[in-house]
Amino acid sequence: MKDLTPTVTTGPLPASRRVWHAGEHHPEIRVPMREIDLHPTAGEPPVTVYDSSGPYTDPDAEIAIDRGLPRLRAAWIAARGDTETYEGRDVEPADNGFAEGARRTPEFPHRPAPRRAMEGRAVTQMAYARAGIITPEMEFVAIRENLGRKAAKAALARDGESFGAEIPDFITPAFVRDEIARGRAIIPANINHPEAEPMVIGRNFLVKINANIGNSAVTSSMAEEVEKMVWAIRWGADTVMDLSTGHNIHNIREWILRNSPVPLGTVPLYQALEKVGGIAEDLTWEVFRDTLIEQAEQGVDYFTIHAGVRLHMIPMTVGRVTGIVSRGGAIMAKWCLHHHRESFLYEHFDEICDIARAYDVAFSLGDGLRPGSIADANDAAQFAELETLGRLTQIAWAKDCQVMIEGPGHVPLHKIKENMDRQLRTCGEAPFYTLGPLTTDIAPGYDHITSGIGAAMIGWFGTAMLCYVTPKEHLGLPDRDDVKVGVITYKIAAHAADLAKGHPAARLRDDALSRARFEFRWEDQFNLSLDPDTARSMHDETLPKEAHKVAHFCSMCGPKFCSMRISHDLRAEAQQEGMQKMAEKFREGGDLYMPLEDGK
Amino acid sequence: MKDLTPTVTTGPLPASRRVWHAGEHHPEIRVPMREIDLHPTAGEPPVTVYDSSGPYTDPDAEIAIDRGLPRLRAAWIAARGDTETYEGRDVEPADNGFAEGARRTPEFPHRPAPRRAMEGRAVTQMAYARAGIITPEMEFVAIRENLGRKAAKAALARDGESFGAEIPDFITPAFVRDEIARGRAIIPANINHPEAEPMVIGRNFLVKINANIGNSAVTSSMAEEVEKMVWAIRWGADTVMDLSTGHNIHNIREWILRNSPVPLGTVPLYQALEKVGGIAEDLTWEVFRDTLIEQAEQGVDYFTIHAGVRLHMIPMTVGRVTGIVSRGGAIMAKWCLHHHRESFLYEHFDEICDIARAYDVAFSLGDGLRPGSIADANDAAQFAELETLGRLTQIAWAKDCQVMIEGPGHVPLHKIKENMDRQLRTCGEAPFYTLGPLTTDIAPGYDHITSGIGAAMIGWFGTAMLCYVTPKEHLGLPDRDDVKVGVITYKIAAHAADLAKGHPAARLRDDALSRARFEFRWEDQFNLSLDPDTARSMHDETLPKEAHKVAHFCSMCGPKFCSMRISHDLRAEAQQEGMQKMAEKFREGGDLYMPLEDGK
Repeated sequence: MKDLTPTVTTGPLPASRRVWHAGEHHPEIRVPMREIDLHPTAGEPPVTVYDSSGPYTDPDAEIAIDRGLPRLRAAWIAARGDTETYEGRDVEPADNGFAEGARRTPEFPHRPAPRRAMEGRAVTQMAYARAGIITPEMEFVAIRENLGRKAAKAALARDGESFGAEIPDFITPAFVRDEIARGRAIIPANINHPEAEPMVIGRNFLVKINANIGNSAVTSSMAEEVEKMVWAIRWGADTVMDLSTGHNIHNIREWILRNSPVPLGTVPLYQALEKVGGIAEDLTWEVFRDTLIEQAEQGVDYFTIHAGVRLHMIPMTVGRVTGIVSRGGAIMAKWCLHHHRESFLYEHFDEICDIARAYDVAFSLGDGLRPGSIADANDAAQFAELETLGRLTQIAWAKDCQVMIEGPGHVPLHKIKENMDRQLRTCGEAPFYTLGPLTTDIAPGYDHITSGIGAAMIGWFGTAMLCYVTPKEHLGLPDRDDVKVGVITYKIAAHAADLAKGHPAARLRDDALSRARFEFRWEDQFNLSLDPDTARSMHDETLPKEAHKVAHFCSMCGPKFCSMRISHDLRAEAQQEGMQKMAEKFREGGDLYMPLEDGK
Repeated sequence: MKDLTPTVTTGPLPASRRVWHAGEHHPEIRVPMREIDLHPTAGEPPVTVYDSSGPYTDPDAEIAIDRGLPRLRAAWIAARGDTETYEGRDVEPADNGFAEGARRTPEFPHRPAPRRAMEGRAVTQMAYARAGIITPEMEFVAIRENLGRKAAKAALARDGESFGAEIPDFITPAFVRDEIARGRAIIPANINHPEAEPMVIGRNFLVKINANIGNSAVTSSMAEEVEKMVWAIRWGADTVMDLSTGHNIHNIREWILRNSPVPLGTVPLYQALEKVGGIAEDLTWEVFRDTLIEQAEQGVDYFTIHAGVRLHMIPMTVGRVTGIVSRGGAIMAKWCLHHHRESFLYEHFDEICDIARAYDVAFSLGDGLRPGSIADANDAAQFAELETLGRLTQIAWAKDCQVMIEGPGHVPLHKIKENMDRQLRTCGEAPFYTLGPLTTDIAPGYDHITSGIGAAMIGWFGTAMLCYVTPKEHLGLPDRDDVKVGVITYKIAAHAADLAKGHPAARLRDDALSRARFEFRWEDQFNLSLDPDTARSMHDETLPKEAHKVAHFCSMCGPKFCSMRISHDLRAEAQQEGMQKMAEKFREGGDLYMPLEDGK
């Protein structure tokens, strides 16, 4: 077994330190952030950025995948006194698709007893918020969202078009509580996943991104999936979904959960289908219910539930170019047609809520009828399902369950806003969580880009979390490189959206990087970028020598043609002498160029 | 010299043929298009797409770089009887930056006498259009823009938000003429570049993209640049700009022009600066004027002229985070300050127009004060320059010169539309030609994506041509791979914009590809994509076997989980039996799955 223990990527990003901020309501909480040190010549303080990477980037943290991460939230959860440990469900052969022998992923070495709500109690963040309680989780995310805002307060000129979002200048724990209470934000935080660092998803917070991982019947292994998780959060994934569909689903998920500092989402239907041998019509409420409990006990933080696919909607998809492209949607459509009845997900949604309420599993109400092509965007089937999702949201809220709503898909630019507007109206402003949308169908191999365009736009309009799309979309399973490209692309989209919404702290990093660029601080430019490794290696391809990192010109143009240099010289003169004097000087024939040290 | 002759990439794209359509007004013209053949099981005609690749993708064309391309337009130009050949300017050592010996790029082997307008004549497409003439160039682009529209007429449901663009259902040569006459579109077509296949740039036509190439003082050679041009147009670049700044500028440009089937743009200021040893303040109108004539005689199709940078605007840039980031803008700012006078470009703009008018060189009025960071977007300097560009447009139009206007730069999402709106208002609807815009500063190494997002959006709002940005932006000179990634990213942005504007034929390719996807025609899916090679190789990484190209499931999910397959089966049943019957059948317990041939 020793050899099977995965190794993962560790170590800090360049010039970066993981730092912690303590709480005030809850002095025991330690909220991680990343500080990027700048070159001394900058004369600027470190730049603070959001840090989703967990202990893996902390050189002082001891990482042992077979022991898992520290159980950060265990004491908070226990202190609330409304949960109990119990023996929990036995792991059955079906949970791992009957994998045996060498094909079987080993069990995670330790299994603490699961915890659930005491009889009749709701242990969701929403229940606490509605009761007026500020949990440690709420204060944690308030501090986390405020990155650099206090320090930068003076510079905070609000500038943006928020389309009705109400982002405050400063996030207080009470603001978080109020947003959770009214369902406008969620903190996915299963009581059985105490390793996770709390994060918030909502329109009035930073736009988040999700990375999908998971093996399939065709390919992939446990070690790869654990490393993909660690790799995805290193580059900025805020949550991870495990979409495994093959064997070993239970055991792989356990390894991921015990080592994941971000919330983990799943589509329980995938595992339920494995348990019935892949025959959709053999699915039953009992098998599905058992799977929900299995996963809730493990600590899954949010469930995608395709309860919005209803029997009467299925004929609406027959005229489509690409039919039903959601796996969950297709499975449920098949089940509904076969039995010619409403889906067990829809009929038992109340009971599903009871399970979610007992473990604080958030819902991601799946868009099983999302469009899979430009031709099918915003059609009757899609919007009929959205109406149902709105009604399910009310049912979940009545049970104190946290809800977000999944969105498309493939949508041309001019039809994106209607998705956001309808979702807000129909689903009571529950957070929207969209896949892309892809803005054209014609670029397989580049669907991170076709969808990054749509993601930036819908994020701007108000989507709270963007589900990444990798270059392999439609073609194959993403490998480690694809995961990174997908994450960086979506960090770009989310950040572009934050900027455009007028998020008060979003521009600090842009401005710091642009100042570094203007002042030829190449190292700072690399270190402040979303992917310092790639920025540095691309620069070095053209100008490999160390000396060029301090050269007062860019690698594109050479010294004579560098607009930044000319412009910088102009600035330096202006600052020294004042613009008026400079104009005089120029009248006398002064030179804007500063001599380069090496005489070039 | 033989060894130095560059080799370039030739051969058709997969399943593709270059085909020609003849004119009606001008039966002699042959307009190239690309037809992509589909698998016989599709039962669909070939898909026709725009083809910018020139003869290089035609297996019957004989390619000899040291002879150049056929002089397609020579007869059209001669037939107009308003031009004359003349001896032309001698090539001087300064034209190649005094490069000598082994460092000197050899001259192109043949040099036909240049052609210019007869005394007093205007030989621009705008002059002809205003005189009511439909030139062969105009009919050429009309046919070229109509790809597939006639055949698809029945299916053409217009759907989009055009923001005031007026794209007709069908483009007639008279429509092209009218758009050119009123300055709303241009056909960059220097009479000394008869090798070029005419193309049109305007808001009521397909959105175009430009790829920048060019050597610098730091790196690159002639052979590389010629191949970059051929490579860029293979993947869809509609025009190419040669931004060379080092030695050998004249000779490299000659090789590129003689082999380029797309219009070539330049920034003449770069070469003029080389001629005065890189000292901006030593630039004179005489040197610049001589450079314009040199390049006009060679056949450059459009000039970037930074005549909008005026003395009084320069102080507006001093408070910026990144000052002046346009090379041309910085050079002119330095000149203006040094001499403390209005720039020679502005003062001699009338004479510049006279040169453009005599060769039909179009203007790309440069945005020398474009913002180089999010912080500087839409500031006073930027918009002051735009006002001047509007006035220069009127001067150029009065001389029958064709004009487009360059735009930013770095702009957050919520400030993009103002750029388009102001440009339309200020510049009389002259075509807008933008670099990106980049929607955040924090992702060097991925600026094709930060800018592709902005490009799609501004293209939708009405920008006529998008200047690509490669992953190397801010870091180094793009190599061949970067050029391809930049071009494909911008083809995505342009196409997403066409779809959203409601271009009547844009969706045909999306729909064909999505049908192929839904029907598991993998080969068709690859062949219809913007980059078939990448799509295929990504697919083969996961499922390398040939058999899987006809498998009725995707490489992501395996057979049991494929939503497309389930959905497809549902469709097949519905078509065969009708929805009502199918529902009955399902009530009796039918199965949606079709058995796979191999029994899986």
